[in-house]
Amino acid sequence: MNVTRELAARIVASRPQDIPHDVQHEALRSLTNYVGCAFGGCRDPAMEIVVRTLAPFSGAERVGVIGRSERFDALNAVLLNGVSSHVLDFDDTIPKNYIHASTTIGSALWGYAGANRVSGMDFTHAFVIGFDVTSRIADAVFPSHYDAGWHSTGSIGVFGATAALGLLMRLSEDEMVAALGIAATQAAGLRETFGSMAKALHPGRAGQSAFLAVMLAKNGFTGPECGLEGPAGFAAVQAGVKSLVSVTERWGVDYDLRLNAYKPFPCGIVVHPVVDASIALHNEHSLTADAIKQVRLHVGARVLDLCNRPRIETGLETKFSAAHGAAVGLARGRGGLAEFSDEAARDPALRALRGRTVVVADDPTITEANAQVDVETYDGRHLSRRVMHALGSVDRPLTDDQLTAKFIDQAEPILGPARAQHLVELCWRIDKAGDVNTVLEAAVAPA
Amino acid sequence: MNVTRELAARIVASRPQDIPHDVQHEALRSLTNYVGCAFGGCRDPAMEIVVRTLAPFSGAERVGVIGRSERFDALNAVLLNGVSSHVLDFDDTIPKNYIHASTTIGSALWGYAGANRVSGMDFTHAFVIGFDVTSRIADAVFPSHYDAGWHSTGSIGVFGATAALGLLMRLSEDEMVAALGIAATQAAGLRETFGSMAKALHPGRAGQSAFLAVMLAKNGFTGPECGLEGPAGFAAVQAGVKSLVSVTERWGVDYDLRLNAYKPFPCGIVVHPVVDASIALHNEHSLTADAIKQVRLHVGARVLDLCNRPRIETGLETKFSAAHGAAVGLARGRGGLAEFSDEAARDPALRALRGRTVVVADDPTITEANAQVDVETYDGRHLSRRVMHALGSVDRPLTDDQLTAKFIDQAEPILGPARAQHLVELCWRIDKAGDVNTVLEAAVAPA
Repeated sequence: MNVTRELAARIVASRPQDIPHDVQHEALRSLTNYVGCAFGGCRDPAMEIVVRTLAPFSGAERVGVIGRSERFDALNAVLLNGVSSHVLDFDDTIPKNYIHASTTIGSALWGYAGANRVSGMDFTHAFVIGFDVTSRIADAVFPSHYDAGWHSTGSIGVFGATAALGLLMRLSEDEMVAALGIAATQAAGLRETFGSMAKALHPGRAGQSAFLAVMLAKNGFTGPECGLEGPAGFAAVQAGVKSLVSVTERWGVDYDLRLNAYKPFPCGIVVHPVVDASIALHNEHSLTADAIKQVRLHVGARVLDLCNRPRIETGLETKFSAAHGAAVGLARGRGGLAEFSDEAARDPALRALRGRTVVVADDPTITEANAQVDVETYDGRHLSRRVMHALGSVDRPLTDDQLTAKFIDQAEPILGPARAQHLVELCWRIDKAGDVNTVLEAAVAPA
Repeated sequence: MNVTRELAARIVASRPQDIPHDVQHEALRSLTNYVGCAFGGCRDPAMEIVVRTLAPFSGAERVGVIGRSERFDALNAVLLNGVSSHVLDFDDTIPKNYIHASTTIGSALWGYAGANRVSGMDFTHAFVIGFDVTSRIADAVFPSHYDAGWHSTGSIGVFGATAALGLLMRLSEDEMVAALGIAATQAAGLRETFGSMAKALHPGRAGQSAFLAVMLAKNGFTGPECGLEGPAGFAAVQAGVKSLVSVTERWGVDYDLRLNAYKPFPCGIVVHPVVDASIALHNEHSLTADAIKQVRLHVGARVLDLCNRPRIETGLETKFSAAHGAAVGLARGRGGLAEFSDEAARDPALRALRGRTVVVADDPTITEANAQVDVETYDGRHLSRRVMHALGSVDRPLTDDQLTAKFIDQAEPILGPARAQHLVELCWRIDKAGDVNTVLEAAVAPA
């Protein structure tokens, strides 16, 4: 049996009762974090532009969008939730393959559930399977796909969203094969967009492509038999990978939700060890920007490729700068939304400190999961801090209470304290909802 | 200056009066052929599925779709016109790089013009520039991009459609740079879909991506500065190509519309020499299927990769089979829509003849533009025909009258003879229209 068909068979045979309890709880953590991050980004300038652009193109169905009062059809709601949940780079990441799985799957699911009655049990099940499909494919083509320049959140997220929506729309095995093939031929998203708003299009656009693929397949549209593994299919063309057998290995035993990470800092995940170490140095030594003569960051090799932008003018660009992550940590002792904003990008003290920072990948014992921050002060001190596991990593995860606090921080400015608290409680028990749309309606902003 | 910006500057500086007369006429040939092919496919099963699927998702604007009575918003109209104009593989091709340029640009333009007043002069100008941008980029990354497995009609067509719509929406140079970058990060389409309906999604989906890119850029959405040539941009990631300097060379002097080819046979263009030679043998020797003992096709090497499907069950699959192209030519003396249909796929005499056919790429003097068909009959004759330039190639083009006849063949079953004749006359002078939408309205089917 070929890989696309074998994967399709496993997806359609999956049942909610198969999901282990710990995985089910991790799904609630991911979904709660997802909704919180959508609030964080729901009034971002990128979001305002997309809302304005799509307004004339929305069909008769009127679906709510997280944190907004405007309503759109389900397909456009997917794009909008994708932008808001990803634009701040505050959403979750699977550290072993760098994919942001929840933003793509979550946005597709929320759009669909706004227009169709979906139980919390089916919703959570679809999310778990979509997440697993995303991460399994991401693993099978890692690192060649990512290193080639693809932003897998879009280019692979489309498969997980297809699996999730395909489950909710009850595709047959043949239809799921077609849907995965129709998804493959829409797989897109380039890392060249990092630092611009265009990056935030990836999850929503992939979610829309998945939605279209599933609806078309359900209606009898035909696709290739081997969309994933064929000679001109996804893995060969977009990763140069020939074997995808690992995609279905240990299916139903291993769940990659167990390896998901939730960000305490809204920036590229490979910068997190730097931020964490820098905050620790700030706190220990009461550092200020003008006390620091020079900073030397020892990081993993991929950080130089992903997060070492030479020119920082906007908040979106700060998210991909290890030097900026060090500067805010060292100078402010914080790495919150305000530290990765347009204001922080232009702050003269931070700008000068970035200019006194060198980023090197010269220590083979340091991977992308670690960092060492060396500081020399004007008064002659040499300070150093090494972080092996940053706060928010799989080995040092945010607690449920920390995730709740992150949610409230982002939702409260939109909903006020009482509604934000009510909504986070609904999210933590979304698997018990009779109709998920009741949760979505509680997430819609007052007009 | 980098390539994306240089290209953007040339696009936005272009003026209708710059277009040479012969290029202007070729644009009319391409647009007329485009509209005719959209009629050919407008009631294809693939089209019926997409119409049904998109019905709930169409916004307040109601734009006509070629050959249909239903109305959709402009973005959905782009997808629908893309499917109908491409699904039969009867649309034009640039033989030097295999791209179907008109289906993607034409579908984007027709969708936009349905919702916005566009003069025929601006419409034709935008088409010429979009066509040129598409072919220039296709050339710059040929053959690595195509041979890797990309269907460039989608993955590169998105850039031409962006240029065309960007001209109509009067983007500034900065906005055009952003739009090309937002287009790059949506570039998609795999050759694995050949033989399935999913191939027909490429032009419309690329047209929608372009439309979204241009609207977003116009509204201030930011993209990468070097979407085409950056280290994680289109050319590096999707073609392994480093230099794109040829993209703007001889701009305004060379126009690739002069190298466009219009198909007399609705199948992959590399099969055309085979069909042409086979029809000639049929006519000369009054061949029938059961008189033929064996067929040997000498073709260019790429034909084995693109058009040598082992299993033929559907009309869509016949379009990518050199053996099928030979069979219909030899047995029926024709290569029209009926010869590449589900009926032809299942015809026992054609099926048996395909089984007695061998396809080889053993003659280094034969490229994809040529073919030699050798036939051995049961009564002992050895017949052979070599075609150097197939009917419809750049060297043996269809005349304007032949294009009119091809249009009428496809439009008459939908519109009736009088309306079809009226419409083709409108198409031949679309550059003179005060509002292109008057032509589109004449192409809408009666309810």
